[in-house]
Amino acid sequence: MQLFNPSAQSQLVEQAIEEKLAVLAQAFLHENLSTTDIDFEHLMERFSDSELPRAPFEFEQYFPSLAEDIVTHAVHTSSPRFIGHMTSALPYFVRPLAKLVTALNQNAVKVETAKSLSPCERQSLGRMHRLIYQYSTDFYKQHIHNHQSTLGILVSGGTVANITALWCARNNALGARGKFAGVEQEGLSAALSFYGYKGATIIGSNLMHYSFDKAADLLGIGSQNLIKIPVDDRNHIDLKLLHQAVLHCQSQRKLILAIIGIAGTTDAGGIDPLHDIASIARSAKTHFHVDAAWGDPLLFSRQHRHKLAGIEQADSVTIDGHKQMYLPMGIVMVFFRNPHLAKAIEKSASYTIRNGSLDLGKRSLEGSRPGMALFLHAALNLIGVEGYEFLIDEGLRKTQYMAERIRTMPEFELIAKPDINLLVYQYIPEPFRERATHKQLIKSDYCVISRFNERLQKVQRQVGRTFISRTVKSIRHFDQEVTIVALRAVLANPLTSETDIDAVLDDQLQIAARLEIETSLEGPVRVV
Amino acid sequence: MQLFNPSAQSQLVEQAIEEKLAVLAQAFLHENLSTTDIDFEHLMERFSDSELPRAPFEFEQYFPSLAEDIVTHAVHTSSPRFIGHMTSALPYFVRPLAKLVTALNQNAVKVETAKSLSPCERQSLGRMHRLIYQYSTDFYKQHIHNHQSTLGILVSGGTVANITALWCARNNALGARGKFAGVEQEGLSAALSFYGYKGATIIGSNLMHYSFDKAADLLGIGSQNLIKIPVDDRNHIDLKLLHQAVLHCQSQRKLILAIIGIAGTTDAGGIDPLHDIASIARSAKTHFHVDAAWGDPLLFSRQHRHKLAGIEQADSVTIDGHKQMYLPMGIVMVFFRNPHLAKAIEKSASYTIRNGSLDLGKRSLEGSRPGMALFLHAALNLIGVEGYEFLIDEGLRKTQYMAERIRTMPEFELIAKPDINLLVYQYIPEPFRERATHKQLIKSDYCVISRFNERLQKVQRQVGRTFISRTVKSIRHFDQEVTIVALRAVLANPLTSETDIDAVLDDQLQIAARLEIETSLEGPVRVV
Repeated sequence: MQLFNPSAQSQLVEQAIEEKLAVLAQAFLHENLSTTDIDFEHLMERFSDSELPRAPFEFEQYFPSLAEDIVTHAVHTSSPRFIGHMTSALPYFVRPLAKLVTALNQNAVKVETAKSLSPCERQSLGRMHRLIYQYSTDFYKQHIHNHQSTLGILVSGGTVANITALWCARNNALGARGKFAGVEQEGLSAALSFYGYKGATIIGSNLMHYSFDKAADLLGIGSQNLIKIPVDDRNHIDLKLLHQAVLHCQSQRKLILAIIGIAGTTDAGGIDPLHDIASIARSAKTHFHVDAAWGDPLLFSRQHRHKLAGIEQADSVTIDGHKQMYLPMGIVMVFFRNPHLAKAIEKSASYTIRNGSLDLGKRSLEGSRPGMALFLHAALNLIGVEGYEFLIDEGLRKTQYMAERIRTMPEFELIAKPDINLLVYQYIPEPFRERATHKQLIKSDYCVISRFNERLQKVQRQVGRTFISRTVKSIRHFDQEVTIVALRAVLANPLTSETDIDAVLDDQLQIAARLEIETSLEGPVRVV
Repeated sequence: MQLFNPSAQSQLVEQAIEEKLAVLAQAFLHENLSTTDIDFEHLMERFSDSELPRAPFEFEQYFPSLAEDIVTHAVHTSSPRFIGHMTSALPYFVRPLAKLVTALNQNAVKVETAKSLSPCERQSLGRMHRLIYQYSTDFYKQHIHNHQSTLGILVSGGTVANITALWCARNNALGARGKFAGVEQEGLSAALSFYGYKGATIIGSNLMHYSFDKAADLLGIGSQNLIKIPVDDRNHIDLKLLHQAVLHCQSQRKLILAIIGIAGTTDAGGIDPLHDIASIARSAKTHFHVDAAWGDPLLFSRQHRHKLAGIEQADSVTIDGHKQMYLPMGIVMVFFRNPHLAKAIEKSASYTIRNGSLDLGKRSLEGSRPGMALFLHAALNLIGVEGYEFLIDEGLRKTQYMAERIRTMPEFELIAKPDINLLVYQYIPEPFRERATHKQLIKSDYCVISRFNERLQKVQRQVGRTFISRTVKSIRHFDQEVTIVALRAVLANPLTSETDIDAVLDDQLQIAARLEIETSLEGPVRVV
């Protein structure tokens, strides 16, 4: 009971916990390492007891395991030298806000449990909608608080956002007509046969995020029917092949549920030609969804927003708050050009979500969810358009710096010219450098180089001083497709300086030199 | 940039923000009201500007709107007199922990961004799995950290949990066989036709949570094929009708994807006869899913765990952390009896989720998500089995108190004997009391009484001193089904005392008395 009571005494205890955890958090945030070098097997052993604790521990008893087992061996996603994934340092106001959000403990599903949070969420989504679609003030006056309209939905992750967009697309394409009650009611088999389709497809480039595989599976389309179009050497979808795929589906009487444009591929940051895809989608009369989870905040930048030209023609757009909007994990948005599109997924329940109400849960995949809108609302006010513009411009500037460094170093090779702030490159072991410079590598060389890069990344991760991720890319080698393992840098952390970038590359050089010696001692690397 | 830097100076600013917000949060938590009586139209006006702020605001400039527009008019879900929804006061350690979780900003999708959090999450899920299934220590030693095994998945909400369970069920029932690549690959139409089914269904009582409508829609089943079986007057599924429905589906060659048992219906807390449903599911060779979002923590109580007998036979179980486990919003679990069941939804991606790894995102609907496991880990240690047992027993004891109070008051009538800690009742306006006592109400009386109760609940909510929700129930009136609007109390807040319960009922009496006078001045209430 004492755990729940907001009495003066328990407030003191809460404060004591607060202070201990604040010290822990600050120490964590100051750390430059990307992670400790503990062996993962050892770490797992610390979490192996499967019995539930019977009697509760006092906080003092629990604290050491929290500090030593969990916090110490967490990943320093905010470290300026952790530049391998899309997590970054966060603005400091999010930490006190997190406590406030938890103290308020609103449930955003309905007005009865999230009164002020409901219009707050709708306003923040409306403002972001305007960033994309730039409709008039009157448009927003009409729709922002209209219970018939859904400008956007706040969800907990990018996958749910993409699924939601395609769910709306599916239910709209196969809606009720005459005696047919629609796919929502009658199911997918009945809907396809009523409309005379022989299956349904979703089309995008082969760099689509894996959430689209989940969406195709969940929605009953089947992941074989997620058509993945090859990309060019800039990681952009091949428009000619896209067009052919559309014609092929039509000739096969397959419903094209949606065409996907990517504004910032997860693996290399490529931005599809959105304007051209929009035209193709329009003439095919299909839904155009843009996955701008990573790239959308470029719209804040006068210098870079032109890269997203065409996004305003999208029927739906996904944006991850926890990426380049610098919000904590768990805040993602999906937007709709047509404020009535999301009616296709509307549900209600007698004890909670009511027709005609402003309940946010009426049109959303998720039900109960926290009042994360507060973070979005605060960030839009405390960072503002100018703050976001600065952050985006800086990230792209530092990417150019890193790309230049890589170009000048014989040890590295850039795989593709970056569209935005992701870089994909390879370390070239010494014996291959001469041939690499003269573009004379043969296919088996790529295998050896790839295995070396994979090992380099794993050792770098294990040592924990700095962090770069890795990915698998297809490149063209004469007339063949070659699959390579490459290193992948994400330049979004505002704390990352040129010095940090140099340090990451130096760390890789050091580790690679050691690996090269080990390898030469072991004899020639064999391809398995 | 200053917003991100962990410098001494910005640490001071963060601390200043922290203190201001802490004062705000404490004042909020001390408030006994359920909410302010502001007019909702006025509140919406405060959030009507659709322009993004260009220049960032200083925190001091932003603070007043945060305090006055948002926090002041949020709902006091932790108030001891807010006993209408499933949100409650939280133990105080969750607030400092929320800050720590945000400071760590781990991404639970993979080990590279959530090193210690990954085994921590698996351990916490393993412990909860053991609470349900009670397998041996050896079983857990074998599976808890085995990358082939999935004992449970941590998700952000109950809807995603239920969808995930049914997604696994669907993909297992319609898996790959011979030349057929399975529903995951080929889609639902192809799968049903390969297996020779004429459609698919999900069966449960008509009190299933509305997330099952979403699941049936999303998964391509169609919500018409979500078969809703009537319940008895205890809100339990009618087993005879369930059995008939199973036979009917079989005779129609419809695949029964899953049979649902509810352990705590959302509207009234009824617990289905799980053991009997398990037998029916077993003989129909179908997946048995238990939605124990609300009721599962009864397993912590020696006194009440027998009510869930049969849950250990479920193929999958949903538990909401944010309900009777007293965790913040955004923590829900789904468990699997068979540690390999979730392989049916496995996905991988070259840049992130890898086969053979312990990456938690391999088998989950969601991708990137926060390190919420920390809350679960902490709560299991700091509350413990004994703490949860106390909380559950107290909630049920207070429910009995409130039920007794209602039984002794002529103004109220209990609608059903409660299984656990939800109560559904009605206020009976004076002119109907005599007839109600003698069970002589006629159908039109119920209409008038329902309208009165709806109005009572709305006024009570608007006045904001106390809060009870409302629901729509079907009751039997002689041989007819009558639909009524009833009041709904949820007794889970540890801070709610007998005095608070009395205060809530008194508040309703006061408001009802005023409404009765208004009504009599207006003339007889008409049924519309």
